[in-house]
Amino acid sequence: MAGSTFGNNITVTTWGESHGEALGVVIDGFPAGLRLCKEDIQIYLDRRKPGQSKFTTARAEGDEVEILSGVFEGHTTGTPISLMVRNMDQHSKDYGNIANTFRPGHADFGFIEKFGTRDYRGGGRSSGRETIGRVAAGAICAKLLRELGIEVFAYTKSIGDVSISEFELGERDLNPVAMPDALAAKEAQEYLEACMLNKDSAGGVIECVITGVPAGVGDPVFEKLDAKLAQAIVSIGSVKGVEIGDGFAVTKSTGSLNNDAFEMKNDKVVKTTNHSGGILGGISDGDDIIVRAAIKPTPSISQLQHTVNEAHEEVDIEIKGRHDPVIVPRAVVVVEAMCAITVCDALLSHMTDRVDYIKEFYKN
Amino acid sequence: MAGSTFGNNITVTTWGESHGEALGVVIDGFPAGLRLCKEDIQIYLDRRKPGQSKFTTARAEGDEVEILSGVFEGHTTGTPISLMVRNMDQHSKDYGNIANTFRPGHADFGFIEKFGTRDYRGGGRSSGRETIGRVAAGAICAKLLRELGIEVFAYTKSIGDVSISEFELGERDLNPVAMPDALAAKEAQEYLEACMLNKDSAGGVIECVITGVPAGVGDPVFEKLDAKLAQAIVSIGSVKGVEIGDGFAVTKSTGSLNNDAFEMKNDKVVKTTNHSGGILGGISDGDDIIVRAAIKPTPSISQLQHTVNEAHEEVDIEIKGRHDPVIVPRAVVVVEAMCAITVCDALLSHMTDRVDYIKEFYKN
Amino acid sequence: MAGSTFGNNITVTTWGESHGEALGVVIDGFPAGLRLCKEDIQIYLDRRKPGQSKFTTARAEGDEVEILSGVFEGHTTGTPISLMVRNMDQHSKDYGNIANTFRPGHADFGFIEKFGTRDYRGGGRSSGRETIGRVAAGAICAKLLRELGIEVFAYTKSIGDVSISEFELGERDLNPVAMPDALAAKEAQEYLEACMLNKDSAGGVIECVITGVPAGVGDPVFEKLDAKLAQAIVSIGSVKGVEIGDGFAVTKSTGSLNNDAFEMKNDKVVKTTNHSGGILGGISDGDDIIVRAAIKPTPSISQLQHTVNEAHEEVDIEIKGRHDPVIVPRAVVVVEAMCAITVCDALLSHMTDRVDYIKEFYKN
Amino acid sequence: MAGSTFGNNITVTTWGESHGEALGVVIDGFPAGLRLCKEDIQIYLDRRKPGQSKFTTARAEGDEVEILSGVFEGHTTGTPISLMVRNMDQHSKDYGNIANTFRPGHADFGFIEKFGTRDYRGGGRSSGRETIGRVAAGAICAKLLRELGIEVFAYTKSIGDVSISEFELGERDLNPVAMPDALAAKEAQEYLEACMLNKDSAGGVIECVITGVPAGVGDPVFEKLDAKLAQAIVSIGSVKGVEIGDGFAVTKSTGSLNNDAFEMKNDKVVKTTNHSGGILGGISDGDDIIVRAAIKPTPSISQLQHTVNEAHEEVDIEIKGRHDPVIVPRAVVVVEAMCAITVCDALLSHMTDRVDYIKEFYKN
Repeated sequence: MAGSTFGNNITVTTWGESHGEALGVVIDGFPAGLRLCKEDIQIYLDRRKPGQSKFTTARAEGDEVEILSGVFEGHTTGTPISLMVRNMDQHSKDYGNIANTFRPGHADFGFIEKFGTRDYRGGGRSSGRETIGRVAAGAICAKLLRELGIEVFAYTKSIGDVSISEFELGERDLNPVAMPDALAAKEAQEYLEACMLNKDSAGGVIECVITGVPAGVGDPVFEKLDAKLAQAIVSIGSVKGVEIGDGFAVTKSTGSLNNDAFEMKNDKVVKTTNHSGGILGGISDGDDIIVRAAIKPTPSISQLQHTVNEAHEEVDIEIKGRHDPVIVPRAVVVVEAMCAITVCDALLSHMTDRVDYIKEFYKN
Repeated sequence: MAGSTFGNNITVTTWGESHGEALGVVIDGFPAGLRLCKEDIQIYLDRRKPGQSKFTTARAEGDEVEILSGVFEGHTTGTPISLMVRNMDQHSKDYGNIANTFRPGHADFGFIEKFGTRDYRGGGRSSGRETIGRVAAGAICAKLLRELGIEVFAYTKSIGDVSISEFELGERDLNPVAMPDALAAKEAQEYLEACMLNKDSAGGVIECVITGVPAGVGDPVFEKLDAKLAQAIVSIGSVKGVEIGDGFAVTKSTGSLNNDAFEMKNDKVVKTTNHSGGILGGISDGDDIIVRAAIKPTPSISQLQHTVNEAHEEVDIEIKGRHDPVIVPRAVVVVEAMCAITVCDALLSHMTDRVDYIKEFYKN
Repeated sequence: MAGSTFGNNITVTTWGESHGEALGVVIDGFPAGLRLCKEDIQIYLDRRKPGQSKFTTARAEGDEVEILSGVFEGHTTGTPISLMVRNMDQHSKDYGNIANTFRPGHADFGFIEKFGTRDYRGGGRSSGRETIGRVAAGAICAKLLRELGIEVFAYTKSIGDVSISEFELGERDLNPVAMPDALAAKEAQEYLEACMLNKDSAGGVIECVITGVPAGVGDPVFEKLDAKLAQAIVSIGSVKGVEIGDGFAVTKSTGSLNNDAFEMKNDKVVKTTNHSGGILGGISDGDDIIVRAAIKPTPSISQLQHTVNEAHEEVDIEIKGRHDPVIVPRAVVVVEAMCAITVCDALLSHMTDRVDYIKEFYKN
Repeated sequence: MAGSTFGNNITVTTWGESHGEALGVVIDGFPAGLRLCKEDIQIYLDRRKPGQSKFTTARAEGDEVEILSGVFEGHTTGTPISLMVRNMDQHSKDYGNIANTFRPGHADFGFIEKFGTRDYRGGGRSSGRETIGRVAAGAICAKLLRELGIEVFAYTKSIGDVSISEFELGERDLNPVAMPDALAAKEAQEYLEACMLNKDSAGGVIECVITGVPAGVGDPVFEKLDAKLAQAIVSIGSVKGVEIGDGFAVTKSTGSLNNDAFEMKNDKVVKTTNHSGGILGGISDGDDIIVRAAIKPTPSISQLQHTVNEAHEEVDIEIKGRHDPVIVPRAVVVVEAMCAITVCDALLSHMTDRVDYIKEFYKN
């Protein structure tokens, strides 16, 4: 099954395994004429790079991106943009019993059932390193979005029971848990340290806000903007839930409370509240788009776990090696990337929605 | 934007407006040789038909399905199956101010911004009646799944604050709120009656369970089985959140609690728990697949609401007419249908995953 | 395999069998705001309708189109346009040995090998009646193209050895062989009469010219404008070859003769010749696009033919019934339709090719 | 427009420019378990490598392929196979007036109109070097096909007026024009030498034969096997026509001559002739599949040519540099590759065509 491509107008195809030669992405259909250099992409990749705090794996990876095609004289050309990151610290060690044992909470068993084989080194294709391609593609889409006045930013909303109660976006990049709230960040770190002492791991919630999307973007049926965001978010490893706007809280609300009234403001139709999270009936309503992702606790923990191996024997394993006690902080930029790709793609679709648009475009 | 098609191997294309001539669906790529008659589809459509209780709109629709192609001598032929339901009770009344006013909580404003026009009769394309095509397609996919030993069933898990605490599937079809718990169903009805008195509406949670899916179905990246289920579910109108397995609860769990241990049982690899909801890393793990959808309160309420019209004047509207005080019970079969379509499609994809499968198939 | 959909931005999904209830098409992604009525479509369908001369089957079909969705108050709404034509003259006769015999030159054997079953009535899905959906969709695309100054017209270039030597488009609709040359048309009819006397059938070439397509439409790699036209044309039953511009003649030409020089004319870049047929490197060059299709002789002939039946016995068959001695004239409008759909789709794709276009669109 | 991907089950995405860092391909959906090493791919790439005779450009490229992902322990893993070839001999010379002049017969003008910019170095994305990715992907598909008993081989059928009259496949690799006929090859070389003396270039016909495809593969409508082959072939640069079986000759034949009779042979349904070229109604009929491509004369010639530059001034250019006087011989392996990809993809589609196949697959 060809499942490594996302998008309709702009397609993002990632490739690569955790401990293979390299990982990368091909972005096809990206419009010509965006000023683009390596650094635009590198700053996004650096946000997901390992080894930046005690809460992330110590694996030493420069994750330096190489632009192989699609950019000429500092601008995109409209042809496929191929980006690659070489794997450096592959530790071609003895993988021991991990090589043929199904780690609980991982896709190992599913891979064997699906493909009959798997690259067991570091999770192979199911490794978090697969997201390098997504983040690189997201960086480029985010740059285009910024030129249209659209900002995409995500942050950690909660880790375990610790939720943010203040919001200062600048703060997000000052702490290792990516929380826009210094106090909550401190508490979250204490919680994580306790988890680590316990050889355990933690989960959390990432929230992403997209500002500046005009009303009218999306689709009323299967390609609803929120439906594509849901696919985009749940396609990130370890996500077990997604919410738009008020999310699951709407189930306990009522129509009179949950409906957002429309009003006029500066000659524009706006909503007085934003329970909808910026999307109504699959189409953007002009308000901030708000998406949340539920991230499960890192499945790789060093506690002894019971499981089964490829020979179908029951065994106990201890997973050694370099693993983040929490995935959330490093996944923040991945959520941002997937949202940027999804919105960018939908914006392009909207350009052909009306005969008038087409006539205007081809008028000469 | 061509957004009315879902699926890769089996594609489901719905068409039709609430008050147009008819609504329908084309199912392409469906395999040849399934015994199929009108009744197989009608029993699914009847579950979403209006007018079945005081909690559903009184609109009188037979919703009788017509099979127009793709079935010959009682079996599917492998060619597109075209199904149609004529609209009967279209009430070609004066739509009054609804025709040019943006109803809060609806896609009206988005439609105008997107298309520059809209069929305002009964919500047009954004009406719940669009799901007729999905349910009809789901009925056919569910029939194929049953022949493979796979069952898909959904039910109301909660309405407002009322959640089920028992589970008796047979009970689901005996009460108008589709709850598999008689006592909770009674409470939910009382809650809904209170909402109606208040000219208000309610939301709730639908849960869907899929049993019998073998391990190894799905994809590790963008076409993850849960990612496609997420798109499928959020593409249903009024869904604001989706969960797989433990969903948002995982964010407060730990790795040691959330990981499902593997063990051997009757010579099969199984899990001792099912926090994963049957999907790990995007691939089925052989356990029950569990999906939940958060449904918002019906946006059409008869309370006076403040809004804006197409002339960009602020106005107050009262939405008259026939509207369900809760969408949840009738959406149960829609969730079931979307899950059936998604799983059916993924099962077909898996058949080409290995060279060995291909050699076995073409061995003669 | 889901093979009944064509197009990227605008998708055309046909359904229906020759002797089923009905045939139809769903056109999704078609832009909102095109004035459209039944008559716009009917005039195209009437061009392929049977029974219009002695060279077409006597089957009596009104082929009256019904618009079921996607049009409101006389304009397209941007939602799927569903069109249907009921089958009338289905002759539910005894199909005799045709029902289980593989007719030479037909897809009967392939259908059985592929699907294990087939609707043998009138060829089922492989009937020329499948093109009703294509023609209906093409009529709508052609109408949009005309509003952009683009004309698509096809005609018979040759039947058997008889080729046109003059070109008067108006003449095309005045003779039953769709030739824009009265004298050649007369000769072709004589040739066809001889074929019919001989219980035999004839083939021919259809040429399609598309004027007014601006330069810059298409794609440099797999979605080349000519590659998509080739798929579109060869997807029509009985087509065995396709040419762009000078086609196979280029193989005997030289670079110096075959290259079209560029020059300036009225401040526009134009070519002094058009060997390219309006497409260079997959992208339109601003000149007339010229496509030719090779149509094989009608395989249904009333001569005795040797073949095999489903029981794998060798048998002789005589194909009775109503069959055109030549497919070419009725296929002219089908070629026109497929070209219109392909070009329309490509024009929409081009609108998102540049960052400048996107910025201009979203500038407010 | 995202036009660099081909295929449904197996998707092939090429990237790269003639004089960029590298060129490559991502093959997604390729089944797991095929034994694969670099050499399997290299032998195909070597067949299209420049510098192998006086009729091919002298550009010195090793075109050594690197496997970056999707292969583990000598076998494909089912995950994306990423392949890359670095550009070596890029001659970062002064491109002079070529940089801003529209070369006749090339896509330069179309690129500027489409994208507003272009990588003018060596044709950028429209260079024949783009086919490196196709050939690499084709090598892998051809290897899988061979394991299923399917062979794909192409050869030069004619160059200018010189056609083959004998057929000895082994001969093909012994002469620089890839003709399976020593005598014709000699004549063709003489013709090419005359062209070169004249600063001119030649075209020709490539024929591809695919043996061993079972009946029943393909689709009856838009995804007809021949329609996809037509897209595949015409998507190769410089192709101006494509034929299946008897191709354009059918237009002068009659039904009685063109129909292939069926008969039984060794308990198998076979045809007594193969005018159809192995495909009837879009579905394989079990016979050899025969496809022909018309290749235009190399547009880059060193004669003085009249054209226009980006400033819209009329100019004369002489195209210096390394160019093949004929594209045909090096395109032979590209045609073979595209046919292998197309057939491989269609074979996978067929595996899900029947309920019985699905039940058999999932029977345990």
